[in-house]
Amino acid sequence: MSARIETALSAALDRIGRDAPPTLSAALRHAVFPGGARVRPRLCLAVAMACGDDRPALADAAGCAIELLHCASLVHDDLPCFDDAATRRGLPSVHAAFGQPLAVLVGDGLILHSFDVIAHEGVRDPARAVCLLSLLASAGGASNGLVAGQAWESETSPPLASYHRAKTGSLFRAAAAMGAVAAGADAAPWFALGDALGDAYQVADDLLDAAGTSAEAGKPIGQDTTHLRPSAVTVLGIDGCLDRFESLVVDARAAVPPCAGADGLRALVEQIATHLVPQALRRDLRQRAA
Amino acid sequence: MSARIETALSAALDRIGRDAPPTLSAALRHAVFPGGARVRPRLCLAVAMACGDDRPALADAAGCAIELLHCASLVHDDLPCFDDAATRRGLPSVHAAFGQPLAVLVGDGLILHSFDVIAHEGVRDPARAVCLLSLLASAGGASNGLVAGQAWESETSPPLASYHRAKTGSLFRAAAAMGAVAAGADAAPWFALGDALGDAYQVADDLLDAAGTSAEAGKPIGQDTTHLRPSAVTVLGIDGCLDRFESLVVDARAAVPPCAGADGLRALVEQIATHLVPQALRRDLRQRAA
Repeated sequence: MSARIETALSAALDRIGRDAPPTLSAALRHAVFPGGARVRPRLCLAVAMACGDDRPALADAAGCAIELLHCASLVHDDLPCFDDAATRRGLPSVHAAFGQPLAVLVGDGLILHSFDVIAHEGVRDPARAVCLLSLLASAGGASNGLVAGQAWESETSPPLASYHRAKTGSLFRAAAAMGAVAAGADAAPWFALGDALGDAYQVADDLLDAAGTSAEAGKPIGQDTTHLRPSAVTVLGIDGCLDRFESLVVDARAAVPPCAGADGLRALVEQIATHLVPQALRRDLRQRAA
Repeated sequence: MSARIETALSAALDRIGRDAPPTLSAALRHAVFPGGARVRPRLCLAVAMACGDDRPALADAAGCAIELLHCASLVHDDLPCFDDAATRRGLPSVHAAFGQPLAVLVGDGLILHSFDVIAHEGVRDPARAVCLLSLLASAGGASNGLVAGQAWESETSPPLASYHRAKTGSLFRAAAAMGAVAAGADAAPWFALGDALGDAYQVADDLLDAAGTSAEAGKPIGQDTTHLRPSAVTVLGIDGCLDRFESLVVDARAAVPPCAGADGLRALVEQIATHLVPQALRRDLRQRAA
């Protein structure tokens, strides 16, 4: 699965890079490679496979588009006017390496290219493609998507649930639904799985930001406090967050609809959960909190 | 036609604004209303009408999407890291009124919503919708679209033709092609009209920036020199630019393919040309240059 994702991303970047201004082309590549855990496209492809994966190129395009949109949001979130993050995945952030103008353009370019990737492949099955493009636009959008999530941070006392659903949940929800749609299945039965995983991811992120080390979190910690951002830790405490995280993982396993690949999907849920907050770290966090 | 465009834009903003964070919602509206001349959606709708306009709601969505993408590019181009423009269309620019974080998000949100508008309406005709979405993504994109155009400014000695085609031409080309596709016609015969109008627009923009007053240009002038941007005036001089502009308007008229609405389209070309550089101003510029 990992090979499918990297190949699709690499082909997408090659296609955009052929005519693009050379510095922009390098900056686009810097934003996407090397990647993180590629959790969202893995979820998307796993759902497509559970649904029969009868159009693998369209599923690859869907997973690729989700990851490009995710990378776009990281590049813009790292900008000096937001998190002002000098590093990302252990390397200079895009604006640190290429300057702010290029970082703004890389984010814009990746958003636009995420749609292009699906439209390009989608001419072979326009009905599925339009549905995928609609799900992608909502996941990123200003109503309930990534843009809304980031914008809630500019409001005084944003509603925590709306904020988290938009900022993190939207892309997990879309990843699960788009995997199904790419394989010709209905989106609706897959929303609950995406929602539970998205919520689990957000709780894990808040936990590591508040109580982990930067090595455990893989990025600078204490950002929620620094930026006065709403956090599940403030509301639930460390122990409460760990309980919530584990209950969300149970929810996610239970949300896998009956299908041929259900066992594989439940195994993926456990893998993602263990990747987010390893068992040893959970024990350690409970001890530190005790 | 103007009423169709404003109604479609207003409905699109209402739909996005229902759930969006309130400040973001206000900032999105500020970026789109009141508008400029709405030249691109007018071109799109005029071509759709010339091609029979059998799906007016899809043509409206196409015109609306093009204008939203155009507004997104203006908001990001105005940012301090690019033009640092405090005003736009006689009002504070989005970052001047709402701050940089919201301005970045407004641009992102408008790009995403431009795709959503077409995907939303496109479920009734997925084949046309996928083609429209592909044209829109290319028009904005990092290869030959708006993002490429802006990024060429970060390169030393960018190729003038690629730069202008990407920065201005791409959206005119898409506007003409998308009007045709929305009405079920082929895109290809319409590219030449969009290209000629896009080139004329860019020459007019360079002319006014170099030789006009800010009242004539409707925005601060001298930006090309300030930002060391490539300009047709540097290459052709004032008189040469006026000649080139007038020859491009002739080209645009001649590029209207044989169709029922050809006369109306040729009239629109003249209207746009007169709007860009009024006859009196042309005479005046020639006298000033003499």
